[in-house]
Amino acid sequence: MKEIPDIIISRLPIYLRALQHMQAQGKTTTSSKELGEQVGVSAAQIRKDLSQFGEFGKQGTGYNIRFLSDRLREILKVDRVWETVIVGMGDMGHALARYQGFKDRGFRVAMVFDNDPAKIGQTVGPYVIQSAAEMGAAIREAGIKVAMLCVPASAAQEVANKLIEAGVVAILNYAPINLNVPPGVRVQYLDPSIGLQRMTYYIGE
Amino acid sequence: MKEIPDIIISRLPIYLRALQHMQAQGKTTTSSKELGEQVGVSAAQIRKDLSQFGEFGKQGTGYNIRFLSDRLREILKVDRVWETVIVGMGDMGHALARYQGFKDRGFRVAMVFDNDPAKIGQTVGPYVIQSAAEMGAAIREAGIKVAMLCVPASAAQEVANKLIEAGVVAILNYAPINLNVPPGVRVQYLDPSIGLQRMTYYIGE
Repeated sequence: MKEIPDIIISRLPIYLRALQHMQAQGKTTTSSKELGEQVGVSAAQIRKDLSQFGEFGKQGTGYNIRFLSDRLREILKVDRVWETVIVGMGDMGHALARYQGFKDRGFRVAMVFDNDPAKIGQTVGPYVIQSAAEMGAAIREAGIKVAMLCVPASAAQEVANKLIEAGVVAILNYAPINLNVPPGVRVQYLDPSIGLQRMTYYIGE
Repeated sequence: MKEIPDIIISRLPIYLRALQHMQAQGKTTTSSKELGEQVGVSAAQIRKDLSQFGEFGKQGTGYNIRFLSDRLREILKVDRVWETVIVGMGDMGHALARYQGFKDRGFRVAMVFDNDPAKIGQTVGPYVIQSAAEMGAAIREAGIKVAMLCVPASAAQEVANKLIEAGVVAILNYAPINLNVPPGVRVQYLDPSIGLQRMTYYIGE
C-alpha cells in the first residue's frame, strides 16, 4: 500500500467527527463543500484527501454519510474499541477518566494508575486507581497498546519508557514536554499552551 | 508581509517548547539536527520552516537557543502575557484553572465562568467562579481576546457565539464538536478522541 502523508491522516478524524455529528442530526448525504465548511477545510482539499483511499462520492450526488464515516472508521481502525489506560490521576487524569467523549469514537478506558499511595485504591468514576508499580504487568497482560499520559512533565519520559516497554505504541501526552520514543511508537500532544500559541500569531495588534 | 502557511505556524510552538526545555537544562546552542530529533521533525524541515522568518543560525555553528526562542516568542506573539478566560467549570475547566503550564508560555487565566448556580461563587485554585451571565460584559471590559471552552458539546456553539460577540478571536475548544466561527476568529481543538484516532491508523494488526 502506498504511504499516505501524515498530514492527511491527521485530518481524517476531524472529517469523521463532523460526519458523525451530521449523522446524529439525521442527515444522510453531504458534499465536500458542506463538509469543508463544517471543518474549515476547502472542498478541493477534502476531495483530494479522500481520493487517496478510493472513490467515496459521485460528482453531483455527494457523499453518503453513513458509508463515508464507516469507511473512515475502518481506515483509522476505530471500527473497533481500543482499550486504553490513564496514567497520573491529577486533575487532568480525573477529567479524562470521567470524559464521556470516547464512546462511539473507538476507545474505552480500561484502567487508571497513579504512584501516590494516597490515591491508590480510591475510585474515580467507574475506576479504582491502581498502583503504578503494577502498570507494566497489567498493560502487558491485557495487551493494551494505547495510553494517556497525565503525569507531571518531570516524570513523563520515565513513565513513557515503562509504557512502551509494556507494549504501548500510541501515547496521548498531556505533559508539556516532548517525549523521545523509539521508531514505531507514536505520540500526540495535547498541550493547551501549544494550542493557544497556534492562534496568537494571527491576532492583530 | 508574505503569508506563512498555517502548517509552519503550527510547528513553531513545538520548536519553542523544545527550545525552552533545552534552555531550562542550561544549554546555550543547538542544531537543526538536535532540535529535529527532540520534536520528531527532519533537520531540513526545521531549517526550511525557520528560513521563512530570516536567518537564525550559521552553517556549522548552529542556533543560539536564547536568541531563537526569543524570536519565536516574538513571531508567535507570546513575548507578552495574554489574559484568557475558562468557560465551563466541569472536570476539564477545573484542571485548566489549576494547570501550571501556562506560566512562561504567554498566558494567564484571568477569569473563570459557569452557568450552574451551585458552582458560581465557589473557588477553584485562585479563582472565584463567576456567572456566565456576566461573561460578555466582563470579557469586553477587560479586552480579553483568548478563551478556553470547556462546556458540554450541546452548549459549545452558543457559548462560542457569546465569546466572539464579546471580542474573543481565539478559542481553545475542549468540547468535542466543530464550531462555526466568522472569518478572523480561530479555533484550536483539544479533543482527546481525535488525538487517539490520529495514532490508531498506524498500529499494526
